[in-house]
Amino acid sequence: MKFNNKNVTIHNDVKIGSNVEIGDNTTIYPNVIIGDNTIIANDCVIGEPINDYYRKRLEYVNPPTKIGSDSLIRSHTIIYCNSEFGNHLTTGHRVTIREKTIIGNHSSVGSYCDIQGDCVIGNYSRLHSYVNVGQKAKIGSFVFIYPYVTITNDLTPPSRPLKGVFIGDYTQIGTNSTLLSTSKINQSCLVAAGSIVFGEYENDSFISGNPAKRVGKLSKMPFFNDKGNRNYPWQKHFSEGLPWAEIGFEDWSKLQNDD
Amino acid sequence: MKFNNKNVTIHNDVKIGSNVEIGDNTTIYPNVIIGDNTIIANDCVIGEPINDYYRKRLEYVNPPTKIGSDSLIRSHTIIYCNSEFGNHLTTGHRVTIREKTIIGNHSSVGSYCDIQGDCVIGNYSRLHSYVNVGQKAKIGSFVFIYPYVTITNDLTPPSRPLKGVFIGDYTQIGTNSTLLSTSKINQSCLVAAGSIVFGEYENDSFISGNPAKRVGKLSKMPFFNDKGNRNYPWQKHFSEGLPWAEIGFEDWSKLQNDD
Amino acid sequence: MKFNNKNVTIHNDVKIGSNVEIGDNTTIYPNVIIGDNTIIANDCVIGEPINDYYRKRLEYVNPPTKIGSDSLIRSHTIIYCNSEFGNHLTTGHRVTIREKTIIGNHSSVGSYCDIQGDCVIGNYSRLHSYVNVGQKAKIGSFVFIYPYVTITNDLTPPSRPLKGVFIGDYTQIGTNSTLLSTSKINQSCLVAAGSIVFGEYENDSFISGNPAKRVGKLSKMPFFNDKGNRNYPWQKHFSEGLPWAEIGFEDWSKLQNDD
Repeated sequence: MKFNNKNVTIHNDVKIGSNVEIGDNTTIYPNVIIGDNTIIANDCVIGEPINDYYRKRLEYVNPPTKIGSDSLIRSHTIIYCNSEFGNHLTTGHRVTIREKTIIGNHSSVGSYCDIQGDCVIGNYSRLHSYVNVGQKAKIGSFVFIYPYVTITNDLTPPSRPLKGVFIGDYTQIGTNSTLLSTSKINQSCLVAAGSIVFGEYENDSFISGNPAKRVGKLSKMPFFNDKGNRNYPWQKHFSEGLPWAEIGFEDWSKLQNDD
Repeated sequence: MKFNNKNVTIHNDVKIGSNVEIGDNTTIYPNVIIGDNTIIANDCVIGEPINDYYRKRLEYVNPPTKIGSDSLIRSHTIIYCNSEFGNHLTTGHRVTIREKTIIGNHSSVGSYCDIQGDCVIGNYSRLHSYVNVGQKAKIGSFVFIYPYVTITNDLTPPSRPLKGVFIGDYTQIGTNSTLLSTSKINQSCLVAAGSIVFGEYENDSFISGNPAKRVGKLSKMPFFNDKGNRNYPWQKHFSEGLPWAEIGFEDWSKLQNDD
Repeated sequence: MKFNNKNVTIHNDVKIGSNVEIGDNTTIYPNVIIGDNTIIANDCVIGEPINDYYRKRLEYVNPPTKIGSDSLIRSHTIIYCNSEFGNHLTTGHRVTIREKTIIGNHSSVGSYCDIQGDCVIGNYSRLHSYVNVGQKAKIGSFVFIYPYVTITNDLTPPSRPLKGVFIGDYTQIGTNSTLLSTSKINQSCLVAAGSIVFGEYENDSFISGNPAKRVGKLSKMPFFNDKGNRNYPWQKHFSEGLPWAEIGFEDWSKLQNDD
């Protein structure tokens, strides 16, 4: 229903893989590569030109943008040029992703997210709706970030240079938290909803409050899931859409270490 | 000005009442029913197909969507299929409402709201801009929710099953508050701006802080309105667009009890 | 690439300056004036009609809207009628600006901002993404407001009349802060991220917490920038896009006082 080839604009120098669908009213700017089996829904913009385009039109050349295979870009998403995405990317509606963003495989970006560019997100990470990722952020793999989290880059605004936040693999950032510039949240942590986070936190930390403190080892906290088990490390209990869905996290983990 | 019948796409099996207007660039997907006197402004999507559509195109049948009468859907709103809305619904711009959402009569959903589906909202409730309603939420009638409130459904993310939040009639949720999964905020409460709410709260509570506590009976708090009266219960002082506008809350209330 | 004159709708009584570009799919409603050298990108709406339009179509006359010169309105921005903007305005994507908004020269409004109208913003002020400006706000010049800040107008919701917030020149409002109705934050203050602000604060205050308190004189706080200098007053160290970029803040400031 969305794919009637109505008002689709595909510029020059666009390479589109096999079995790709492009929705109505979508525009693909020059120098975009789209992998096989990817669906770009209606009203999207892929390869949105950067600011130079507006004021230096004649000399402007759009930098390259790469969307991987097997991806689903939902409607009204704007992806700037000069970014690179792995395979199996999913977006919600009305996402904005600025230039110089690098995202790995199997990650997702929820509706209304604003990724400000010049940042890196790993594999199998999930940004829920309205996540605001500031420049210079480095986000690992299997990181889930919940709505209204803002990842900042300036401790003494306004100042330069911008300095990003680091988030380690498997870490969960609760809704409505603010991660202040230069913070380093290592692996397998949980940041409680509404925390204002600043500083460095070791692996397996439960972090909470304003200013946020390390309450203790996350794996020792009395956080039980519906089956009555300690929920953390969460990978033991949760596998929807994750690579250990078939064999469980422990076996999968061993296979990774063997590689 | 918005209704030039330009680029309007209305699919098969759409039932449109009398005196309905559909704005330019709007798409109505199959199996949508729209009540009399409703206005769908420009660039809207009504009956947006769910995920199965993208990958199982041939066998896909769009579930039914019902928009009531006398509604105003402002521009750039996306309403998924498989939802049902009462009469006199109003939306702001760029709203997203996912599948399995049920909303009563005379309610409104502000600009940029993200209603994630599988939830219920009563009558005369008002969501201001950027409210994020997680799945499984049950929101009563005459509930006003202010910007950036997030209503969550997972206490130990990520885990399953999702468990929603309950909000009783006449309750007000202040801006930028987070309501944690399983919280039950009963009738006629006020949650202060920026609270992180967890637990059950009796009727007529003033709730504030992180973690939020019941400060006391809301109707006894020294919250005065511009006329010098205690503002709560607010229904005694505020009637804009509400069914007691003509006769006052007390008389209206008696009539309800008589029915 | 964006300016192919495709699906552009320009109504009657629109005055467009010289060297203006209008992007594809953009609609300009009646009674809009656009200054010289301004770029309105694709999929924008300028002069969006107010509510009366929907229900009183025949007698409706669109109030005037003025966009200044040398402005850049990025794609998918909706600007209501009955507003007035100075020169060199910049917007992000998907901004919404309601009626009766007045913005000075050289200011910017980031992606997803929701300006609810009936408010004033000065010169050289910058709203980052997702800032929510309630009605009756008065925001000075050189004010920078970071993501998810919400500026409210009702202390005892719901009640009337709405009462706005005042923000003085040079003040910085950290991300995810809530400014409660009637607050007055004077000049050259810094509100820390995540603060819930209520009350009046003198010039040069550092304000933090929930409820927010004045911690002390901002210019005496140990906030150092990358060069090891106290960062506040920030005007001494930061001049990107600001009128003192060439001669420094002190000399520029003297010239202002001489005028």
